[in-house]
Amino acid sequence: MAVDLGTAVSKLLAQLQTSDYASVVSINIFVALICACIVIGHLLEENRWMNESITALIIGLCTGVVIRLVSKGKDSHIMVFSEDLFFIYVLPPIIFNAGFQVKKKQFFRNFITIMLFGAVGTLISFVIISLGALEFFRKMDIGTLEIGDYLAIGAIFSATDSVCTLQVLNQDETPLLYSLVFGEGVVNDATSVVLFNAIQKFDLVHIDVIVALQFVGNFIYLFLTSTLLGAVGGLLSAYIIKKLYFGRHSTDREVALMILMAYLTYMLAELLNLSGILTVFFCGIVMSHYTWHNVTESSRVTTKHAFATLSFIAEVFLFLYVGTDALDIEKWKYVSDSPGKSIGVSSILLGLVLVGRAAFVFPLCFISNLSKKSQNKKITFKQQVIIWWAGLMRGAVSIALAYNQFTRSGHTQVRGNAFLITSTITVVLFSTMVFGLLTKPLIDLLLPASSKHLTRSLSISSDPPSPKSFLSPLLSNGQGSEVETAENLHRPTSLRMLLTTPTRSVHHYWRKFDDAFMRPVFGGRGFVPFVPGSPIERSVNAWE
Amino acid sequence: MAVDLGTAVSKLLAQLQTSDYASVVSINIFVALICACIVIGHLLEENRWMNESITALIIGLCTGVVIRLVSKGKDSHIMVFSEDLFFIYVLPPIIFNAGFQVKKKQFFRNFITIMLFGAVGTLISFVIISLGALEFFRKMDIGTLEIGDYLAIGAIFSATDSVCTLQVLNQDETPLLYSLVFGEGVVNDATSVVLFNAIQKFDLVHIDVIVALQFVGNFIYLFLTSTLLGAVGGLLSAYIIKKLYFGRHSTDREVALMILMAYLTYMLAELLNLSGILTVFFCGIVMSHYTWHNVTESSRVTTKHAFATLSFIAEVFLFLYVGTDALDIEKWKYVSDSPGKSIGVSSILLGLVLVGRAAFVFPLCFISNLSKKSQNKKITFKQQVIIWWAGLMRGAVSIALAYNQFTRSGHTQVRGNAFLITSTITVVLFSTMVFGLLTKPLIDLLLPASSKHLTRSLSISSDPPSPKSFLSPLLSNGQGSEVETAENLHRPTSLRMLLTTPTRSVHHYWRKFDDAFMRPVFGGRGFVPFVPGSPIERSVNAWE
Repeated sequence: MAVDLGTAVSKLLAQLQTSDYASVVSINIFVALICACIVIGHLLEENRWMNESITALIIGLCTGVVIRLVSKGKDSHIMVFSEDLFFIYVLPPIIFNAGFQVKKKQFFRNFITIMLFGAVGTLISFVIISLGALEFFRKMDIGTLEIGDYLAIGAIFSATDSVCTLQVLNQDETPLLYSLVFGEGVVNDATSVVLFNAIQKFDLVHIDVIVALQFVGNFIYLFLTSTLLGAVGGLLSAYIIKKLYFGRHSTDREVALMILMAYLTYMLAELLNLSGILTVFFCGIVMSHYTWHNVTESSRVTTKHAFATLSFIAEVFLFLYVGTDALDIEKWKYVSDSPGKSIGVSSILLGLVLVGRAAFVFPLCFISNLSKKSQNKKITFKQQVIIWWAGLMRGAVSIALAYNQFTRSGHTQVRGNAFLITSTITVVLFSTMVFGLLTKPLIDLLLPASSKHLTRSLSISSDPPSPKSFLSPLLSNGQGSEVETAENLHRPTSLRMLLTTPTRSVHHYWRKFDDAFMRPVFGGRGFVPFVPGSPIERSVNAWE
Repeated sequence: MAVDLGTAVSKLLAQLQTSDYASVVSINIFVALICACIVIGHLLEENRWMNESITALIIGLCTGVVIRLVSKGKDSHIMVFSEDLFFIYVLPPIIFNAGFQVKKKQFFRNFITIMLFGAVGTLISFVIISLGALEFFRKMDIGTLEIGDYLAIGAIFSATDSVCTLQVLNQDETPLLYSLVFGEGVVNDATSVVLFNAIQKFDLVHIDVIVALQFVGNFIYLFLTSTLLGAVGGLLSAYIIKKLYFGRHSTDREVALMILMAYLTYMLAELLNLSGILTVFFCGIVMSHYTWHNVTESSRVTTKHAFATLSFIAEVFLFLYVGTDALDIEKWKYVSDSPGKSIGVSSILLGLVLVGRAAFVFPLCFISNLSKKSQNKKITFKQQVIIWWAGLMRGAVSIALAYNQFTRSGHTQVRGNAFLITSTITVVLFSTMVFGLLTKPLIDLLLPASSKHLTRSLSISSDPPSPKSFLSPLLSNGQGSEVETAENLHRPTSLRMLLTTPTRSVHHYWRKFDDAFMRPVFGGRGFVPFVPGSPIERSVNAWE
């Protein structure tokens, strides 16, 4: 009986330990490393070259080396990159927070340019990279690649990584550049979904007008449905919170509803094969415009910081993950016999990325400038260089797509695929570290402090100056726009500009529509009556 | 070439869609259901019988039925309960938040009673349930069960579910009962870990003094190391934030560090085979005592609500999950041919749970009362009945343990195991719904409003009255204790009691030690100097 008992329980315990022991170990390692990155990133804050993402990447690389050494190459599967983890859990909070904290005016004022970059620009870049890869790699002996692989290379490397952009461009310092490059990164996610669908559906060898029109129609359909889904999710949350909760607010429920509704829109978009990134970005914008104003003061502070924190943790984790995974032995052993060729492939890809981006940034900026009459509003050549440079980084999205195309469940067995995986990793590491490190100094060089201020005051003249936005984050979203409106009323020049420029008049009519129909239904700043004894009053009293 | 391309890409897309399509669907369903639970739970808030957990359980059951009907029994594996998901992701935020928001004074004042309940009480209950099951089930024909299975039944059903307790007892209304029953739930997690280890290590058939002493030593070791790990994690976070961040705070980094350090302690405890629940609970207590006072005002609001929200989402998800999983067809088809026997097994288990708990609550309360001289401080018989009743619920912890013991990766093939799994689910559903629903009315019946207030004022005379704690959550943690100190100084009776009662004098010396050594190093209320232009000032200005 005692033996029975012993074996039964030891079986149980063995099962307990094997089933999740590996995941417990890797969770421990990653959580400890993220803590280390946060502390080190903070200590290096004064350093103008470093930031948390590069710290995370380097720490990840070092950890990868240590793990390989300790496990002697056996344990290389713990750290294998998982696309599910990336697309389902890591990406949504980052993009949602970007939408939630984005300066909406700046974003919508440059909407046409952003769309041009994200849709047409990505397409140009895709064609150039695909053709270039076809041209160069055919001559090199790197294993068999099908035509689909070349097109996939184009799709993988034509998309700017919006997460990297968030890290190197500062919304407060260079708002115009931030909104252009980051907005482009969001829109070209939709483009790449359309590209993948198009490659599947259409006969690309015989392109004619109808196919091109179908392609354009497809893009417009996808863009509109994704945006609409995000907006409907945001409005629904605003409506529910306004109708149900008002008068008897519960912070925890409000915050939970906002998080869950935002995540639901993303997952619904993924389910319906729409662009989840676009959906959750617009959901963030709508939530910050309506829902955020319907909740209690504590919920506002909480959501503001909780979303930023979640996004921050996800970003650090992502770079750490990419760094740790980069040195996975299996994929490197196929290319280790020909290091020269591997470097060649990576260099060609990097070159194509540089050329592909230059081929649309400068022409499209030229076209965009043609449409603007005022000299002040044109994008200067120096700014064009920064737009070109800041969008060069390729990040985790590229790695995820590369794994998806060139591996089966994370393992690389074919020679050609191994080359492309390792080259993708090389390009990502190189572009993030080198281009990322050089972006800040480049901006300082091309746009010294004085002209940066000039740029800002010219391009977003009616946006409030927010030098302390890091210190007083509450100001940047709601209260800011109030100052803005007052400024518009007091300055006739702004008012005149508002009527002459087409984007501005769109904005003007939107404001009228918003005030007359949207805000009375969905709430928003100024449309939620002040209640005596509301959280504002209470919290002030409590602290005094 | 066109065909090559088409097949390549369609392969890619097929892979993309199958790899995570199922998980995308189930995430969508669960997120939408959690939203529904929150809204419905809010609408039913006025109802004294219902709460979010029972709503979630019922909605989960309905969803389970709908899914089975729609998928015609094929799709029953999407919703299979996963212990990893439960222990790694769902449980830690709930227990951490409980520690973070617990009334520390009340908890430590009843510490000895809580330990008695959690350690000795659980052991008594374990023995009674194991022996009872052995006695009854041997006579019934429910398949082969080994002796280890009977002991496991004892371990599974002797542990109170702390998550359920959180739902039915209110910390503000019945603080003494809450801290006793909930504290017991936390401590008996450690007991059950020790029990499982003991069953494995020791020859339980020949129990002698040495084995018993080893068992006691093992429990003390596990309790101390788990507590220490949690405390060290909390203190480390306090020290890092105090040393590194002071003067140049960053809310996102502070919040991220607190979340990650807390989670790290839990995962480390799991890695080292300690009691993760105990660790993360004490980490929460330490963090609310030190770390919370070192961060900015926005971080305080954010952590307070973000932890509560995470815990809230996890709780709703858990009940939903248990409800959805309960009707999984596979396990029911083995017992459907003998429904009477299944009901018999469940009834016996329920009866054993009732008897097992009664067998230690009343005797231990009697012993606890013997040690107290003042009539006012004794636990009345009515309170004993509520302690007995409120701890009867068995929840997700029981289900997770039952799956762990009686299934291999979630599937039930053996007849005896199927009986025990279905009975566990029946006991959990019945105890949560019936006992849970009746707890509030029972408290109202046994302790009418006036005597409830009496109980409170007697048992925690120096705790500040916090009738508005739901409305002003910031008050309940930090500011509260300040009032408390002032009261102690002004009322000589409290001061005298503090010196006469042993627990109180421990508390007194702890306060002295805390003020002299701990707070100067780790921060805490009153030991973080006020900085002009600090977040308090800024946020007040920003809102005016």
